[in-house]
Amino acid sequence: MDYIYLNDLYEKEEEYLGKKIKLKGWIRNHRKQKDFGFIYFSDGTVFKQLQLVYDNTLKNFDEIQKLRISSAIEVEGELIKSVGQGQDYELKVSDLKLHGDCSEDYPIQPKKHSMEFLREQSYLRLRTNTFQAVFRIRSVASMAIHQFFQDRGYIYAHTPIFTSSDCEGAGEMFQVTTQKLEEIAKTGKTDNSKEYFGRPVGLTVSGQFEGEAFAQAFSKIYTFGPTFRADPSHTPLHIAEFWQIEPEVAFCDLEGIMDISEDLMKFVIKYTLERCPSEFEFLNKYVEEGLIDKLNTVINSKFVRATYKECIDILKKAKIKFQFKPEYGEDLAKEHERYITEYFKSPVFITYWPQKVKKCFYMKQMDDGTVANADLEMPGIGETYGMSQREDDFDKLERRIDELGMNKDEYIWYMNLRKYGTTVHSGFGMGFERLIMYMTGMSNIRDVSAFPRTPGNCLY
Amino acid sequence: MDYIYLNDLYEKEEEYLGKKIKLKGWIRNHRKQKDFGFIYFSDGTVFKQLQLVYDNTLKNFDEIQKLRISSAIEVEGELIKSVGQGQDYELKVSDLKLHGDCSEDYPIQPKKHSMEFLREQSYLRLRTNTFQAVFRIRSVASMAIHQFFQDRGYIYAHTPIFTSSDCEGAGEMFQVTTQKLEEIAKTGKTDNSKEYFGRPVGLTVSGQFEGEAFAQAFSKIYTFGPTFRADPSHTPLHIAEFWQIEPEVAFCDLEGIMDISEDLMKFVIKYTLERCPSEFEFLNKYVEEGLIDKLNTVINSKFVRATYKECIDILKKAKIKFQFKPEYGEDLAKEHERYITEYFKSPVFITYWPQKVKKCFYMKQMDDGTVANADLEMPGIGETYGMSQREDDFDKLERRIDELGMNKDEYIWYMNLRKYGTTVHSGFGMGFERLIMYMTGMSNIRDVSAFPRTPGNCLY
Repeated sequence: MDYIYLNDLYEKEEEYLGKKIKLKGWIRNHRKQKDFGFIYFSDGTVFKQLQLVYDNTLKNFDEIQKLRISSAIEVEGELIKSVGQGQDYELKVSDLKLHGDCSEDYPIQPKKHSMEFLREQSYLRLRTNTFQAVFRIRSVASMAIHQFFQDRGYIYAHTPIFTSSDCEGAGEMFQVTTQKLEEIAKTGKTDNSKEYFGRPVGLTVSGQFEGEAFAQAFSKIYTFGPTFRADPSHTPLHIAEFWQIEPEVAFCDLEGIMDISEDLMKFVIKYTLERCPSEFEFLNKYVEEGLIDKLNTVINSKFVRATYKECIDILKKAKIKFQFKPEYGEDLAKEHERYITEYFKSPVFITYWPQKVKKCFYMKQMDDGTVANADLEMPGIGETYGMSQREDDFDKLERRIDELGMNKDEYIWYMNLRKYGTTVHSGFGMGFERLIMYMTGMSNIRDVSAFPRTPGNCLY
Repeated sequence: MDYIYLNDLYEKEEEYLGKKIKLKGWIRNHRKQKDFGFIYFSDGTVFKQLQLVYDNTLKNFDEIQKLRISSAIEVEGELIKSVGQGQDYELKVSDLKLHGDCSEDYPIQPKKHSMEFLREQSYLRLRTNTFQAVFRIRSVASMAIHQFFQDRGYIYAHTPIFTSSDCEGAGEMFQVTTQKLEEIAKTGKTDNSKEYFGRPVGLTVSGQFEGEAFAQAFSKIYTFGPTFRADPSHTPLHIAEFWQIEPEVAFCDLEGIMDISEDLMKFVIKYTLERCPSEFEFLNKYVEEGLIDKLNTVINSKFVRATYKECIDILKKAKIKFQFKPEYGEDLAKEHERYITEYFKSPVFITYWPQKVKKCFYMKQMDDGTVANADLEMPGIGETYGMSQREDDFDKLERRIDELGMNKDEYIWYMNLRKYGTTVHSGFGMGFERLIMYMTGMSNIRDVSAFPRTPGNCLY
């Protein structure tokens, strides 16, 4: 008899009702009575578990009663309507075999564990309800991103991880070397002949530059891959290794990229809500009250667009006392961002920041000292990610690189994109983990990355 | 007037026929006559270009005649049936504006350039026909992979790039450090307090181990992301940074994973052939004669499964003289692989290799000294990638780790997966670039990776 997966079962329960089926998966919980027992069973293909009911007419009843949580089993039985509460169907077990038992020292038991404890068990926490929900949502949201762009004719670009140029210029790059550090210490000198690339290189902080080269060939492209920052901040928002989605679009101005950004966010949320109802219900109940309402509000709202200057005006007129006084030419503090989203009761694109606040050399320079950029502020969390029209003028770009004292040699190819058929073009870099945090209500980035890399932590 | 994309135009040509449309893109070629001219135009959203026809009734006729290849333009005109050969439709230009001109020193001209030359212009070669075809196929094939797995209930797992464990144990890992190498040379000592992770770490060679942890929670998972090998080989098949697809499936044996592998390969080829007909026609004509037939043969064949022992028997009986004599207990040479695929006239899974040939400690050990693995051999190229059932027995796995003298501490969590509800499970690691080489006929891996990283080369 062939076995089926739980997701197939739950797609056509009525068809399986009264039929004998076989399943393979793990015991998530086990309640025992004298003459019968209940096993909460999952194979991980769907959030909803299945209740298995067995009784002492089974010849291995005694062994079954001893089965511990997380044991791998194979079970046959008839799918019946459940008389108990909490589920519509259950499986009346006719045969149950053990595949792999679970040692007594299994650290995760059916009780409340702290997130900190679970982080120490990253390889096992994936089996718990919370992480089953988070990582199924993460997978479905990933697919949503590909679906969105591919349906619209974008090319998926795999931009390089090893790089010689520092996109953000923030000097927070990890360094890659094939020299032995002990050897350097012993000999007292470095030796580039031992380097794979002839010199140490960095790990990319962004695929934007190579993405722009792609966009000048294919018009519409996106990246979706890991990027890296050696920022040693210990915060719930920072992580060394994170995935980014970076579209670059030729013949697209700032207004255009805001449209794309808004459409993408709504599409991903809607797509995932539709496909993971049980996951969102669980998170709504146990992780963030009001999560589903929050997400539906985003889908149904028209994102506001306000210039930086308009926002400062609003902040200056606000009847509340801020810790930091809002000033033209200064960055916005968290409290300011929060006020702005509450003021508009909507996600807000704050546009056209002063160049001296947003220093990225690649942003399109306007005549009034601002740049053609936007930060998307979401209610409740503030700034999520930024986008900009890119400087498409060779001379202006070169001047900016000189002003900032950057190493021009590294950027010549990038500058040349402005010499060989330049276009108005724009893009953004959306941090995927932060999007998943927003969508799941998880408050620490370490809990939406399966094996998070943070200062001092590179386990597994 | 809103502009449209060329892929939209080619989806409903009949609808646009006789209508006025606007397009934005680049000049790919330009033929000038005294009173008129032809521009071969593309916006990169589809392989097929559009012929623009203009004449001296346009007020900027003289400037248009001067436009160089790769200039970015905006064009308006009527879509008409073409009277010329080579295309069904063309655009009769009523207005043509220059967005960004192209400098005279643009290195790529409409003539045959060598692949070596184009590699030095990676950021520009994306605009040529060959690379338009290759990277559109790469993008569509990526989507095919996601579609295949997501339709079948797999979870997309983002496994970490930074790692402390070496999956293949081959010692070919890139090392990541946040210490300054000059500082080590100067002080004569390393200083782990300067390390982001408290010590140097490596870049992953495979997501398999973390993938197995995912599979023991979700049953069916896949990874699709970059992996790294510091193998300094200068060959057309080796590259430092490449993408891998690594499914891991619980309750799945070797037969099962071969089924999945065969289904995936056929699905990806079929999906991509259907969506990129012009690209494949071009490659079939200019890159590999017979490419389309080759791919259709794969789709329509049933992959053969033969044990290693059967293959050695076949090789020993072969009536040709091999350079290397086939022997039981020895690896297969390229000439042997070629003979086997020709013998079966089909892709072949060669199964159950001697453990002393396939040394990977994680492969399921059989009682007869073989391991439950398979290499997939494709006609014309030989070994493409391997798969195996994983050792699910804690004790056998531990013994193997000891035998190979590996550092057991690093693998305790991985071994524990066998202690906490172990299952028969299997997986494979498919190198994405090699698949794309096979699908496009490109003979050098540097030409299917946009910005290839090879010994001494980390440009862009």
